[in-house]
Amino acid sequence: MLTLHNYFRSSTSTRLRAALNLKGLDYDYKAYALLKKETQTPDFLARSPAGLVPVLELDDGTALSQSLAIIEYLEEEYPDPPLLPADARGRARVRALAYMIACEVHPLNNLRVLQYLATQFDQDDQGKAAWFNHWVHQTFRPLEALLADSPETGRYCHGDTPGLADCCLYAQIWNNRRFKVDSSPYPTIERIFAALDELEPFRKAAPPEQPDAT
Amino acid sequence: MLTLHNYFRSSTSTRLRAALNLKGLDYDYKAYALLKKETQTPDFLARSPAGLVPVLELDDGTALSQSLAIIEYLEEEYPDPPLLPADARGRARVRALAYMIACEVHPLNNLRVLQYLATQFDQDDQGKAAWFNHWVHQTFRPLEALLADSPETGRYCHGDTPGLADCCLYAQIWNNRRFKVDSSPYPTIERIFAALDELEPFRKAAPPEQPDAT
Repeated sequence: MLTLHNYFRSSTSTRLRAALNLKGLDYDYKAYALLKKETQTPDFLARSPAGLVPVLELDDGTALSQSLAIIEYLEEEYPDPPLLPADARGRARVRALAYMIACEVHPLNNLRVLQYLATQFDQDDQGKAAWFNHWVHQTFRPLEALLADSPETGRYCHGDTPGLADCCLYAQIWNNRRFKVDSSPYPTIERIFAALDELEPFRKAAPPEQPDAT
Repeated sequence: MLTLHNYFRSSTSTRLRAALNLKGLDYDYKAYALLKKETQTPDFLARSPAGLVPVLELDDGTALSQSLAIIEYLEEEYPDPPLLPADARGRARVRALAYMIACEVHPLNNLRVLQYLATQFDQDDQGKAAWFNHWVHQTFRPLEALLADSPETGRYCHGDTPGLADCCLYAQIWNNRRFKVDSSPYPTIERIFAALDELEPFRKAAPPEQPDAT
């Protein structure tokens, strides 16, 4: 049995839950309250020195970290259904869309960064929200263009099968909502989110559906 | 012939140059001065709406973006020599090490973020350097632990063959040097960097070796 060490609101946790659900993989859910620094305990750090969620623990105790590395692992070990297209260029497109979110948006907007803005730069909620919104729009503008203009975009980010980019996009939108990001400039992204939100693997991965949701 | 649209000092460009060199792939080098906003021209944006380097242009004009997506594409299309280990768990380890740098360090410390700190938070060079150093140490502490404690670490990040994690690490160290990051707490990382720096594919990828280096 797989054990997922995670937090309901963590966007990287949400994307991994969606991937696990799409693959039809069961897992034990272990929750860590980030605000209470529950990933900074000696126990957790022994498993994962970076002190970050999510961590996927395999049967034999091996702890895998970094959500995208874990999803690639799942794709290799449980190839059916695939989360990446069959052709190399399609895979490059899907990974690029996923990494736009994973490398350009999310790292700037996670909890520890927002905490740094508050403690070191004296930013209040408004300053943090302006920062959050800035980086979302910076990437969502080209992301919308890439999705709207490509014949490869289908019901989801790439064709009519949900995959890696959709996992990242779905999780990011939940984050955006917390910070009241205006989504009106992004009709294609919104359409894809609505389509994903109808699918049980995504719906089950959503933050409000988790046992530790507050 | 491949065309690499990039910038000598860009860390994501450096990691991709290292990967191309390791694969023995030739490419036309096109330089874009980020400080002069040369990736914000209509021409460049038509190729790559995000306006970011690196972009790898294939023979037929297809433009691939996001350095890690491009490296995975190279790995699939030009598998020899491999940049990822043969076993799924090894690949998960190497990708996790690479993503620690690509998703936790680099996104916080690139040019546009430092510019935001200056213009919106009124940070001078000292404030920007403190920020840069903070996020490097935040990830380099666990990265050093993961590398130092694992029997899988060899001459390089994973065994004695340089790969994906090494490309990311090598590029990040060049960035760290510009911001005078104290590397003394990271003897394993320093040892690996020194070993990589002896290899021609890495040496040739280093920022000072590029035609647009200033």
